[in-house]
Amino acid sequence: MDEVSIEEPLQIELTHVRGGKKHRYSVAVMMRTPGNDAELAAGFLFTEGIIKRHDDWSRIEYIDNNHVLVEFSRYAYLDVSKLERQSFVSSSCGVCGKRSIAAVFSEQQYPLTPGSPRLEVDLIHRLPEIQRKAQDNFHRTGGIHASALFDANGNLLSLFEDVGRHNALDKLIGNQMFADKLPLTQHILLLSGRASFELIQKACMAGIRVVAAVGAPSSLAVQLARETSMTLLGFVRENRFNVYADAGRLQFHRTSAPEVDSQPTEESKLQ
Amino acid sequence: MDEVSIEEPLQIELTHVRGGKKHRYSVAVMMRTPGNDAELAAGFLFTEGIIKRHDDWSRIEYIDNNHVLVEFSRYAYLDVSKLERQSFVSSSCGVCGKRSIAAVFSEQQYPLTPGSPRLEVDLIHRLPEIQRKAQDNFHRTGGIHASALFDANGNLLSLFEDVGRHNALDKLIGNQMFADKLPLTQHILLLSGRASFELIQKACMAGIRVVAAVGAPSSLAVQLARETSMTLLGFVRENRFNVYADAGRLQFHRTSAPEVDSQPTEESKLQ
Repeated sequence: MDEVSIEEPLQIELTHVRGGKKHRYSVAVMMRTPGNDAELAAGFLFTEGIIKRHDDWSRIEYIDNNHVLVEFSRYAYLDVSKLERQSFVSSSCGVCGKRSIAAVFSEQQYPLTPGSPRLEVDLIHRLPEIQRKAQDNFHRTGGIHASALFDANGNLLSLFEDVGRHNALDKLIGNQMFADKLPLTQHILLLSGRASFELIQKACMAGIRVVAAVGAPSSLAVQLARETSMTLLGFVRENRFNVYADAGRLQFHRTSAPEVDSQPTEESKLQ
Repeated sequence: MDEVSIEEPLQIELTHVRGGKKHRYSVAVMMRTPGNDAELAAGFLFTEGIIKRHDDWSRIEYIDNNHVLVEFSRYAYLDVSKLERQSFVSSSCGVCGKRSIAAVFSEQQYPLTPGSPRLEVDLIHRLPEIQRKAQDNFHRTGGIHASALFDANGNLLSLFEDVGRHNALDKLIGNQMFADKLPLTQHILLLSGRASFELIQKACMAGIRVVAAVGAPSSLAVQLARETSMTLLGFVRENRFNVYADAGRLQFHRTSAPEVDSQPTEESKLQ
């Protein structure tokens, strides 16, 4: 008998008191692995631009196991029009990749800027193994996606798993929002699978400058990363990776550097 | 330079003439790999229960590369309430796995029944390799999902790829709808990755009785398969697989069967 990953629907509703009246809005229904639902809801609402900061979040209430009510702070401004749009994708009705990217720019609270962190290539090579070991502690189902957050020294700070790749990242970002750690400018996000547009969009919203994916990125993910000064690495496995955007943050050590060279690193201007 | 998989948004709208007036409805915006958009739209509308048969589909018109208008046949009945629901997941507002499964039962046109096809285990083992070879002919990006349809003899009939796993299956089902081949009762569907609830739901809608996934199934996928008499196989790779639902369709050859035994197969009643 093998274990299987648990998948259950989660319905998220939002309540907001305005003008002395309590309004209730349907936000989303998603398939997720139960657990860390508050982080999931917070990360989703944050990366969709509905919640702007930790203070906007008042509390979460369970109606039942698969149905939560998020109470928006009464002092916060709720842009109801955002609730009518299903996601960044549908917000770009028009519709083209260019507009999807423009929508990210208009929602971003923490625009990415060039600069730190600077990362050694060897450090990048080590990340998947660290993530895999951390995952072994949690799940053995083989059917789950993970998002892991590392500091610039390669220390694992946080890891979340879910049957849905977006959910794993939303949980991670929600968790960091609750800890008042956003934006995550000096961190590395490692994705266990492919890097789609929506994952890169979520990373952008959280101010993440370096994303490494074990799998392949999509064309639109690459385009978004390039336009936002994000370093995007793909196929990060078996001591190799591809650089899809902004190689400037990587430090390449010369293998068998000559002894006379006191500066064994060199910057790559790949791209 | 590596190639990357193309990902672009697609907006699907539906038009329907009723009472002499042309009505226009927004259906969905999804991220997909361009190509076979008609099949994608048809498969999506069919598996959501909006289009019931090929005849309901009149034509598709491109507004631009990423925006299509599907014309619903004027003789067909369009249940507008279905357009208000985003998907099977959200249609089960309530919300629990049980209701998600109940929603499938209420929408299914082709309820699965026990019985054929009967499949030899060796045949199952061969499928991933056939799929992989067929994929090589199309894409080399490493970042794409595939859905492949085989007949009961293991012949590859159809294969579609997409950055979105749901889209690959929608394209395949839409293609089969256009060819008037639904329901696909005597076929095997091979999924290149994991089997989530939504993929199994789509397979159910198309009447597919045997689903084999190279990756793991989720708990709710297993539950749905068991309740609908679907044979569900997971981790179909490297000459092994797990049986998650209805092993009755599998024929296990005895390895080194004794010469005296004129019937070298035996039915397994695993589960």
